[in-house]
Amino acid sequence: MEAAIKEIRQAIGDDDAISTDPEDLKAHGYSEWSSTNIDGLPVAVAYPKSTMEVSKIAKICCKYRVPIIPFSGGSSLEGNFSAPYGGISVDFAYMDKILQFNPGDMDIVVQPSVSWMELNEELARRESGLFFPPDPGPTAKIGGMVGTNCSGTNAVRYGTMKDWVINLTVVLADGTIVKTKRRPRKSSAGYNLNSLFVGSEGTLGLVTEITLKLAVVPQEFSVAVVTFPSIRDAASAAAGVMRAGIQVAAMEIMDEVQMKVVNLSGLTSPRKWKEKPTLFFKFSGTKASVKENISMVSAIAKMHKGGDFEFAKDAKEQKLLWSARKESLWSMLALRKEGGEVWSTDVAVPFSRLADIIEVSKKEMDELGLFASILGHIGDGNFHESIMYDRTVEGEREKVERCVKNMVKRALDMEGTCTGEHGIGIGKKEALFMEVGPDTLGVMESIKSALDPHWIMNPGKIIDVPS
Amino acid sequence: MEAAIKEIRQAIGDDDAISTDPEDLKAHGYSEWSSTNIDGLPVAVAYPKSTMEVSKIAKICCKYRVPIIPFSGGSSLEGNFSAPYGGISVDFAYMDKILQFNPGDMDIVVQPSVSWMELNEELARRESGLFFPPDPGPTAKIGGMVGTNCSGTNAVRYGTMKDWVINLTVVLADGTIVKTKRRPRKSSAGYNLNSLFVGSEGTLGLVTEITLKLAVVPQEFSVAVVTFPSIRDAASAAAGVMRAGIQVAAMEIMDEVQMKVVNLSGLTSPRKWKEKPTLFFKFSGTKASVKENISMVSAIAKMHKGGDFEFAKDAKEQKLLWSARKESLWSMLALRKEGGEVWSTDVAVPFSRLADIIEVSKKEMDELGLFASILGHIGDGNFHESIMYDRTVEGEREKVERCVKNMVKRALDMEGTCTGEHGIGIGKKEALFMEVGPDTLGVMESIKSALDPHWIMNPGKIIDVPS
Repeated sequence: MEAAIKEIRQAIGDDDAISTDPEDLKAHGYSEWSSTNIDGLPVAVAYPKSTMEVSKIAKICCKYRVPIIPFSGGSSLEGNFSAPYGGISVDFAYMDKILQFNPGDMDIVVQPSVSWMELNEELARRESGLFFPPDPGPTAKIGGMVGTNCSGTNAVRYGTMKDWVINLTVVLADGTIVKTKRRPRKSSAGYNLNSLFVGSEGTLGLVTEITLKLAVVPQEFSVAVVTFPSIRDAASAAAGVMRAGIQVAAMEIMDEVQMKVVNLSGLTSPRKWKEKPTLFFKFSGTKASVKENISMVSAIAKMHKGGDFEFAKDAKEQKLLWSARKESLWSMLALRKEGGEVWSTDVAVPFSRLADIIEVSKKEMDELGLFASILGHIGDGNFHESIMYDRTVEGEREKVERCVKNMVKRALDMEGTCTGEHGIGIGKKEALFMEVGPDTLGVMESIKSALDPHWIMNPGKIIDVPS
Repeated sequence: MEAAIKEIRQAIGDDDAISTDPEDLKAHGYSEWSSTNIDGLPVAVAYPKSTMEVSKIAKICCKYRVPIIPFSGGSSLEGNFSAPYGGISVDFAYMDKILQFNPGDMDIVVQPSVSWMELNEELARRESGLFFPPDPGPTAKIGGMVGTNCSGTNAVRYGTMKDWVINLTVVLADGTIVKTKRRPRKSSAGYNLNSLFVGSEGTLGLVTEITLKLAVVPQEFSVAVVTFPSIRDAASAAAGVMRAGIQVAAMEIMDEVQMKVVNLSGLTSPRKWKEKPTLFFKFSGTKASVKENISMVSAIAKMHKGGDFEFAKDAKEQKLLWSARKESLWSMLALRKEGGEVWSTDVAVPFSRLADIIEVSKKEMDELGLFASILGHIGDGNFHESIMYDRTVEGEREKVERCVKNMVKRALDMEGTCTGEHGIGIGKKEALFMEVGPDTLGVMESIKSALDPHWIMNPGKIIDVPS
């Protein structure tokens, strides 16, 4: 390991290229956001400045059989960048540039540490009329977003990360640099390596350049908020909107607890929200289509006992209405007391089952006396549960863990998935095994072994390292 | 090989389960549509009735190292189902059922030989208000559509085959049956095996069940046709529509030759078309949005010298206007004389380059005296070239082949792909190598070897069998 570090330092010819500072190691192996943390840390953190340097690092790590763990935003939730086998965390902090912008083709080439929010700000600054739709947590960066195949509130309209990748430059386990494709928006040429690397959490290679599709910024936006007597009514209304084929830009659900959390946090003050199950809608398109969509959604909401359909009158009010949704995780984190932790997780089910799983899961948590809130990308059948607990109280974490496991099991029983957008990391390996079974996991393992025969790429994530 | 055939007959317990009839072999190894045909034929054709029977066939073929080639619609164009190494063609003719329909979740589970057109007819018959968007050639079936990651005119609005697959049941090379996922519309759980199998042309496994997403049938449709003085003007108008973010349901280009072909064929008679570069638009959505989209597109077309913006007044006229596009390949085939063949191929480029590549490719064909037409999914940067030639005239096929190769090379030079929706098969292996290079092809080869160590699954397609 020390030999590898020394060699990397020499190869890159820069003393700052690799750090063994304890603070640095902790920041790259532990996360207060993540539901899963482990005791170990990486042994060093490398800071490459180019694909070529990443390749050099990989070659050296391959030679010494040292694990490599990619790191960009560090906002993943399932221990996706933890270092159970030590090794070197490769932080893309210095690879944060836009390399090429092709407005005529509506695409852009970026490095892994470009933040999706800054990317959108830059696209607005350039008056391109284009934007990048996937909108996960605000601190996420493109590299990690590729890793977990993340999405966010825009997914119901625009799809998930895999739908926005045109090509990837990837450094393989032995340091070979490959490019998955050239730059067509559509292709049937050979195996779809884009979609294989997207969501593989750095276990098959290190993504160093990403060509992203961009979308045209719609002419008009509107935001509306509607409350319902029960989660089931809200879910039925949402299903009605989907089945009517109304193109909402986003459709989010928040339960009464989450609404209360937002009020308590004061983050959207002076606005106070009704503490009821609530649907948040975003509309976008042309003026006429937005108007029409709103009136259709409003009619459907009424049919399902929706009340107080509130619209934003202008951009400022839009921001205010949407802020309750955007601030939800922060609101929860802000309420933590000393020793408090928030376990945040996600599952997805066929959307006719969403009300069922939410109802049962809420009931279980209530009975166990846990403070938990639910919010979800309801049009995708995907929701998040955030459970607050005190790590200093014996048995409390175990109680939460059991609840999460039960919810995952429930999702699988309803033909769903253990994660809609957070990924497997370390935290959901067992759940993945339950979800797909040994033979399908065996296919994943064969692919992993074929591309990374020494299991040095983010080992212990998604699949257990064979003993 | 004979032992394998005998054993399959015994295992399935049905004499009709496997055929060695010469007519049958020819129908499964040769295609008059395909640009690429070879001399060899499969040695037998198996007709399984269930996933379990497919698994039995695969186990026996694995034991005897006999190649397996999947077959459904037989409409692929690059020799995708040819049998260069002999072996057994597995025809899914008897696996043509809808297994489960989940209207509440907007999905449906089907077997490989369900035709996409019949699927849509059935969905209409059940008054589900749902449809399946990908629309390749009318004879295509879902199994083959998965194999080639096909698309069609709806792709600009709805994406390609990979975007509509929720899960797959796959029989692996050794007969193991796996299911890629359960039934969530969105998932980040492990490697994206859906997208790996979609487009793998049966080289990684035999797909026996497919769960497809469905979309809501829009309220309103409209169709319009506009002519332009040049392909470049038409392409500029199309780019303008894309950059304005107007959501067309389809946007197709046909050159003056293709319009002439349609007129000559008489297939849309009594309607006669202007023999000029033409854009075909399909609009769909709510009443207001369709109206609005039409007026925006009409304004953009005018800015690019578009004339004679013709609308369909009703459903019948819509069908008539759209028919010129739908009948284009048939029109071309209908014009063949004795000995005549049509070479139909596709490439895709970043869409700002579409006019360039079409102009140069047309010029080359004109200079060589070839009769060729162009039509394309212009919003995806994807177009088809259909070249007529006489196989009995010496050197004519070679001339066509050279033209196609040059067009592919041009597409790659413009950062495009050698195929947007037809796949690689046998015909474009060299092109794929040029497109991605040896290292990326090496990644594909590793995956192939990992999942099919004896190279018995549709060998010789996409990647050469290692010698």
